[in-house]
Parts: sequence; structure tokens; C-alpha cells
Amino acid sequence: MDEFSFIQSIKQHSYKQSSLIKGVGDDAAIIRQSSEDVVVAVDTFVENVHFSKETTEPYHIGHRVLAANISDMAAMGATPAFYLVSIVLSKHYSSKEVEEIFEGMRSIANRYGMDLIGGDTVSGQEMSISVTVIGYVSQKRARYRSDAREKDIVFVTGTLGDSQAGFHILNNASTYQDETYYIEKHQQPIPRVEFAKRLEEIDRVALNDISDGIGNEAAEIAEASQVTLHLFEDKIPTSASYSQFPSELQEKWKLFGGEDFELVGTVSKDKWTYVQEAANDIGIPVTEIGYVSQYKNNYVYLHKDNRHIPLKKDGYNHLK
Amino acid sequence: MDEFSFIQSIKQHSYKQSSLIKGVGDDAAIIRQSSEDVVVAVDTFVENVHFSKETTEPYHIGHRVLAANISDMAAMGATPAFYLVSIVLSKHYSSKEVEEIFEGMRSIANRYGMDLIGGDTVSGQEMSISVTVIGYVSQKRARYRSDAREKDIVFVTGTLGDSQAGFHILNNASTYQDETYYIEKHQQPIPRVEFAKRLEEIDRVALNDISDGIGNEAAEIAEASQVTLHLFEDKIPTSASYSQFPSELQEKWKLFGGEDFELVGTVSKDKWTYVQEAANDIGIPVTEIGYVSQYKNNYVYLHKDNRHIPLKKDGYNHLK
Repeated sequence: MDEFSFIQSIKQHSYKQSSLIKGVGDDAAIIRQSSEDVVVAVDTFVENVHFSKETTEPYHIGHRVLAANISDMAAMGATPAFYLVSIVLSKHYSSKEVEEIFEGMRSIANRYGMDLIGGDTVSGQEMSISVTVIGYVSQKRARYRSDAREKDIVFVTGTLGDSQAGFHILNNASTYQDETYYIEKHQQPIPRVEFAKRLEEIDRVALNDISDGIGNEAAEIAEASQVTLHLFEDKIPTSASYSQFPSELQEKWKLFGGEDFELVGTVSKDKWTYVQEAANDIGIPVTEIGYVSQYKNNYVYLHKDNRHIPLKKDGYNHLK
Repeated sequence: MDEFSFIQSIKQHSYKQSSLIKGVGDDAAIIRQSSEDVVVAVDTFVENVHFSKETTEPYHIGHRVLAANISDMAAMGATPAFYLVSIVLSKHYSSKEVEEIFEGMRSIANRYGMDLIGGDTVSGQEMSISVTVIGYVSQKRARYRSDAREKDIVFVTGTLGDSQAGFHILNNASTYQDETYYIEKHQQPIPRVEFAKRLEEIDRVALNDISDGIGNEAAEIAEASQVTLHLFEDKIPTSASYSQFPSELQEKWKLFGGEDFELVGTVSKDKWTYVQEAANDIGIPVTEIGYVSQYKNNYVYLHKDNRHIPLKKDGYNHLK
């Protein structure tokens, strides 16, 4: 298949977003938006770093790549609207498999009414997929990491460690409770766009999405806000059957395991009821897991067994 | 250098664009624009496909990668404002060389007052650089390929084939006239942003940038507009000393050689004087090279020695 045919095959026949002026088919795409701010982020996924052919179906690669980008939008309080896909195609993937990657992206894009409006395809030695996502946020409602304040409550959506548990199940054949649940959390995570959007009425919320583990994400909030975040180890929410895994893996996954795409945030105490009601309305769990103090020696402390341990920024660091 | 330090090293200390609300440092960047439309494009460059360590200095890789993206903005009639860089780092490039790539991008970005507002860095087997560029265009002034009309004049900016000539000089040691000129056209091409912007007063102009050779770009205009473009071979502008190269290479480079980043366009006859004056004002050549007819059997004909030869879409096709 040549590049032209390929682009035709992934091109949408119609677009959903009314702010789109020009989609795929010229030198660039054009959007028109006047009342809301435009939010833009880029993420790149590389074969054998972020995914491998052995453990991830092409469809799920597509889903996860776009989910990671959508999660960045959620973490900004933004609604995703468009995506552009630049893909380096390697010989390890057939045309059919590449189409499945795009199908995986399309499935989650459709959930949010997002349109594919551009991209690029080139061939190379190793597959990599770079996604640009564009969304909208109401003026003065972008959610910055730098907005945590002393005495705020620290909260997290959903349950942590599930994606890593799913990955573990896929790689270690055995009998597990809720096997499908964990695998689905790994293969087809759903970012918390609706929840972030529901918080729009609150003036100030600090938000970050958990792509690299809560340890790392909490540290990013603390550092940007110049405060210290205190997390209670026993309050970090996990799934009911999570205790079936070895305890050292449980701890590792829930603190440093990436790609849960839940949100960690801080909000003032008087808004905490509102946050709980918002989560309740859309049917997702939200849990208070700690508090914010003045900056004291470290950005994040994990309170465990009556000790408080400085948590290092210890997420997945690709340049290490 | 870890990812955090790397991002700090390439982060701008201040931003030039007044529409920027949030730059590097959170989950996404935010821009606010109400009067103009937002234009977005993505291009990916892969080691050993688009550039190689042997023939291209890191600084020039950076320059050319961003120039290609800026050229897409010019081809839309848009003014570039922002860029995001997702880079897959390979071991073939040292930290210092990667910094030089970013310096090359910064040098051409500064020419247009563009800000680097986001990106991603990951490591892999082969270097690839994916750039997202965002610009602005006045409403109803985007320049589409589909806007060519019967009886239009076909024009081109600058001279063609120079970039390929520069590449040839770099790879074939000998004595050449205007050696530095050709090499610079290859290593540091300057897209035609100012010229495209100057055409804003004209209602309708079809534009495309010449990244893959005029044969291919003319065909894209013709196909999108459902017309036929006639090009006169002897009118295609080349540099004064271009005749020093073997004649078959001259023809190949000027028709199918990529990366000149000139613009090919069509405009009605009564606007042709205005187009010439615009080019004259900013000191660049613009040349009438043909005309547009009703669609007849082929999208592009090359008129040469009293024959008219159907030109195939024969640019660089990465999926072939």
C-alpha cells in the first residue's frame, strides 16, 4: 500500500467536531475556536519501549497510545477534540496490523467524539507512534500542577496498580481472580475526562494524570506548587482482589506502576464534598489519600506503619 | 542526562507569542486565540530516511526538520507561532549533538518568533523527530490545494533543484561554482512564510509547498481542484550556475527533487501583477511557469520541445 492509499484508508468520511474548518487532505488542518482555550500535547510511543508485539495486540497499542494523550487532556481539565498521528512503520507490522492500530485509536476517539485531522507516515527500522492531541478548556479553568496549596486534601480517582497487575497476568500464566478485569485495565484504560470536566465549577484544583506512578506524579505537583504532599500508604485505593498478588508487587505497582491513567489532585477542604459528589454522579471512585503541607525537606512523604518515608521521583524515566 | 534535566535544558526562559497561556511544564500547553483560525500540522523525520549522520550536521537536521513544518504553514497561508518536538533518541547521537539539533530548530524558530511549547523524549534504536507546528491564519484566507481554477496562472517562488544540487555537492567532491550557495540551500532552507502572508489581500490562491518535487506538488493541486496543470519545462526557474550540473540531473532535481521548500501556486490572471509586486517587495523571485485548464486525462502535463508529457506523481513516497 502506498502512502496515498494508506492515508485514504484511515481518513474519516465525516467529522464530528463543529469547530473543524479543514481536516485531512491539505498541508495542515484548521480549527476555529473563540470562546475556549486551545490545549495541545504530544506523546510518542516506541516499539519495545512502550509496547511489544509479543504482549500487545495492535488494536490495544492504538487504544493505549491515544488513551495516554487523552489522559493529558483530562489532567488539564480539558475536553479532547482532535488528534494527529505521525507513525514510523517498521517491517514487524503488516498493513493489516497498522490498520488495527488505527482502529484501536478510533474506538477510543469515538468515545469522546474526537476527529483524526492529520499526521504523517514514514518507514523506519522500528515502529514509533507520535500522537498530537488538541482539546478545549474554559478560560481560567485549566488545571495546573502548580495549584496545590497548604492544607489541601490529596485525592485520587479509581484504583491504582491495576494496569501493572494486568501486564503481570499477561506475562505470568497462572490462575487469577478477576483476570479479565485487570487485563482490560491494562489493554484498554479509560482516562478520566468526564470527571475532570465535572470539576469545572471549582475555582482551583491541581491535577496530574498517573502515567508514571503516583510517586512521580505527586512529586510533580509538589515541586510545581512548592509544597509537600503527604500520602497515607493504607489509604491508596486498590481493587478488591488486588491482595492476591505478592505484597512487594502490590506496593511497587500502586506506587510506581504506570499507565493507570487515573488522576491525582489536590483541592481545598471545603470543596471536597463537591469533588466526591462529582465522582459519584458519573459512577467512579474518588478517595482522599493525604494532605498538603508547607514544603519540608522533600516533595512527597509516604506515611506507612507510623513512619514517613521520603518518596523519590521514581517513575519510568526514559533517558536514564 | 535524565529526561527532566533534558527538558530543562531545552525549555525557553521566556516566550514571545502573546497568545500563549501555558508553555512547557505541565501536561499540555494552552493557547488563546479568538480572531484567527488555528492551523496545525505534523511531520516526522527518521534517521537514514530523511537525514544521515554522515551528510548532515545535527544543527542542520534541526533546521531542516522545523523548516519543513514551517513550510506547511506557508503553504496554508498561515503564520507559524508554536512548535512541539517529540524525539526518539538513539545511541548514534550524543547529548551534545541532540542539543545542537534543538539549537538548529531554535535558530529558524526565532526568525519567525516561534515558541517551543511542548514535546516528549524517549529512547529507541533509531533517531526520529516528530514536530507539531501550530500557526494562525485569518478567517477565509487559508490557502487550499483545491482552489485552482481553469485559466489560472501557475507560478513558483525562488529557484528549483538547488537543495538537491547542494546534496550532490556534499556527496561528490569536486570543484563547483557557487558551492556555498547550493549547500546552504540544502542545509538551511528558508520557507516562504512572508510571501504567503503578503498574498492575504487576494481572495483566492491555491498553494502547495515543494517538499517532494514540483511534479508531485502540482499533481496534488490539480487532483484536489479537479483540473489539469500545464507546466512549461523551459520556464521552471533555476539558479544562474545550475547549468554546470549534468543535464539529466538538472531535470531530475528541478522536477522531482524535494526539499526546496518553495511554493507552487495558481491565481487568476488579474491578480498576477499583485503576486509579482508582493514577491518584489520582499525581494524573492516569482515566475509564471504554466496555466490551468479543465481536467483532461492527466493532472499535470510538462510542455517540453513541442510535446506535452503527462507527469506522474513521482515524489518521494515513503510507503512504496
